Amino acid sequence: MVTLNSRLPELGARARLASRRLALASTASKDEALRRAGELILQRAPEVLSANDADLDRARATGVPASAIDRLQLDERRLEQMSAGLFAVAGLQDPVGEVVDGVLRPNGLSVRRVRVPLGVVGVIYENRPNVTADAAALCLKSGNAAFLRGSSAAQASNVAIASVLREALAKAGLPSDGVLLVEDVSREAAEEFVRLTGIIDCLIPRGGPSLVAMVREKATVPYVIDGDGNCHVYVHEAADLGMAVRIVLNAKTSRPSVCNAMESLLVDAGIAQVFLPLVGRALAERGVKLLADEAASAELGDMAEPATPEDFGREFLDLCCSVAVVDGLDAAIEHIGRYSSGHSEAIVTQDLSAATRFTREVDAAAVLVNASTRFVDGGELGLGAEVGISTQKLHARGPMGLRELTTVKWVIEGNGHTR
Amino acid sequence: MVTLNSRLPELGARARLASRRLALASTASKDEALRRAGELILQRAPEVLSANDADLDRARATGVPASAIDRLQLDERRLEQMSAGLFAVAGLQDPVGEVVDGVLRPNGLSVRRVRVPLGVVGVIYENRPNVTADAAALCLKSGNAAFLRGSSAAQASNVAIASVLREALAKAGLPSDGVLLVEDVSREAAEEFVRLTGIIDCLIPRGGPSLVAMVREKATVPYVIDGDGNCHVYVHEAADLGMAVRIVLNAKTSRPSVCNAMESLLVDAGIAQVFLPLVGRALAERGVKLLADEAASAELGDMAEPATPEDFGREFLDLCCSVAVVDGLDAAIEHIGRYSSGHSEAIVTQDLSAATRFTREVDAAAVLVNASTRFVDGGELGLGAEVGISTQKLHARGPMGLRELTTVKWVIEGNGHTR
Repeated sequence: MVTLNSRLPELGARARLASRRLALASTASKDEALRRAGELILQRAPEVLSANDADLDRARATGVPASAIDRLQLDERRLEQMSAGLFAVAGLQDPVGEVVDGVLRPNGLSVRRVRVPLGVVGVIYENRPNVTADAAALCLKSGNAAFLRGSSAAQASNVAIASVLREALAKAGLPSDGVLLVEDVSREAAEEFVRLTGIIDCLIPRGGPSLVAMVREKATVPYVIDGDGNCHVYVHEAADLGMAVRIVLNAKTSRPSVCNAMESLLVDAGIAQVFLPLVGRALAERGVKLLADEAASAELGDMAEPATPEDFGREFLDLCCSVAVVDGLDAAIEHIGRYSSGHSEAIVTQDLSAATRFTREVDAAAVLVNASTRFVDGGELGLGAEVGISTQKLHARGPMGLRELTTVKWVIEGNGHTR
Repeated sequence: MVTLNSRLPELGARARLASRRLALASTASKDEALRRAGELILQRAPEVLSANDADLDRARATGVPASAIDRLQLDERRLEQMSAGLFAVAGLQDPVGEVVDGVLRPNGLSVRRVRVPLGVVGVIYENRPNVTADAAALCLKSGNAAFLRGSSAAQASNVAIASVLREALAKAGLPSDGVLLVEDVSREAAEEFVRLTGIIDCLIPRGGPSLVAMVREKATVPYVIDGDGNCHVYVHEAADLGMAVRIVLNAKTSRPSVCNAMESLLVDAGIAQVFLPLVGRALAERGVKLLADEAASAELGDMAEPATPEDFGREFLDLCCSVAVVDGLDAAIEHIGRYSSGHSEAIVTQDLSAATRFTREVDAAAVLVNASTRFVDGGELGLGAEVGISTQKLHARGPMGLRELTTVKWVIEGNGHTR
């Protein structure tokens, strides 16, 4: 039974206890739990979908917008994807136990750093109930207990999914408390959750700016921020303009609602007259609204509307982007330095020294040369799975995989060594 | 002139600007600045010592205890050590630019992670003015701007030392704002300092529990906690008892005031009758006060006083330690799990499976077999220099060297790649 009415510190103590067992669990038993969860989620589809219906009814009754309803909704296909995701995580390499580095000291002391789970990973998230399965699977594979706090809107769905995961853990001989879902979905409970010092080893907030702001303001536990992406594509004067159009179109329109989509286009003054009409028409054909500065507007004409300075700092997450003309590489780097959210920044150029300076001097989790910002994604970069994309510099930067759900332990072996 | 009356956000903006230049500075210029600082600190000894005298006079007038006076005091010898430290950091390997890992993706995208500076490192610290030079040197070598906030007690000394470092930076052609000391030493300014989101990329508090608690409670910037060390030495029944005595003596008495000193001794019930009188006499000879549980008291007699349960959670930082008898490996791991601060935990044993279980199951930054906890130190473990010892699990765990003052950047190169 997953219904957890207990107080948070009690739940946390249960998560800690489970984390100690999970840290020592074999890869085989963790993978068995993941595969059993992948089977069970399909067997229990009727229960999960009926719980989801209850959430949807409640959401519709309270006038939730259609886009949020879509994120909340589960169906057979989405449950199949969830199941496939659980099997996929079972197929990933277990990061636990890797010897990261080591040395034999001159005094004969043997020193190595070994990868170990973080312990209890707290995830606080909004809406989409598939996060319950995704986050729990990645925590489990990396030997952590998943301490989950979803949104009130998805609570019935989350309870149903967490219940499946807990049953799968038990069937694989692992502690079912390896997945714990907080029942109390009040704002007070969220604030208490992020202050469980000594219980949560790492907190991952997955949600919008107000959730991130709450975490920054209230949290006393260590956390990793998965922040906004105000990603730029800078078309340098030495760019292949055909390539530049293809990259801009892909970065802006292939999936505008995600954080690695382009939100701002910078074009060198020397090529603005040729390139802007070209890219402007291509973007207009895909229905992209352009907010341009004065110099860009002069070339784009009625394809663009005037941009305010604030528009250059916005993450639109929609078919809309800001456009500015810049006076060469230095000005582009300066502009990005002012407006970047530190996520992903791209240059299009055939000039080696411009590419080198851009990658060295732009301060972001990812810098790209002649490639769409859309590649900044755990799957695309070979991580296998993605926990999120960190826009902070501590612990993890950019796409986070299983490795980022671990820490290291120093193991030091002597033979009676004293100082 | 280092006297900085500006408001914190203005200072922060200057630190950020300097950090952008330092991130791109050559190893040669950074090393030159460090060596020049090492020379200047000796040339300016009269000024630095006179500033220190002013701090000392003020401290004595306000009745500061002798141990704090000692930590505050500078003299020719300490300045020579400071100078030697600056030269030593110049001799360390520059961590910036290292390619951490990389891959050529099947689609031809070239991906690598490159080590880069964090940016602005904030250090908030208490008393000892040598931290000003140490922290600034490590930040500089790793390409970061050092944004420093010392204690009011050491302010004149800190200003004098920071002034030397700023002059050395300028002489090496680097921005003097690479070292910025906050002039306002009020508590309000400290709280504002730890909330400089977007300015401080990493905060390192170096001080006691009240400073750490303030940071946890107030900080909105990312931080790494350098916490307490309630370190245990567990003498297993299969220990070489002579080795165990030597390790316990070294761990407790070689430098009792540091965080890697032993604070609690656990002894297996099977050997308590033989081992406790042996180690008790040796500790008593060195003036160590023992606070023992009932079973340990039975063997130690009047060498010990009764311990309260709270004593097992204390970091004494003095010639004092708690002693308990435990009923085998499981009980020892359980006891450590309850009282450990996650710093350093040691087992003394000749039994391989006990050693393996201990190193796997005990959750701490460092676990040691047959070696003194005193080895958990950046210098001893081969890091060259130590920024602190992290007792949290995110970003850095255990001794932190220059590497822990860096982050990574993903560099992704394509040839017109789109998704």
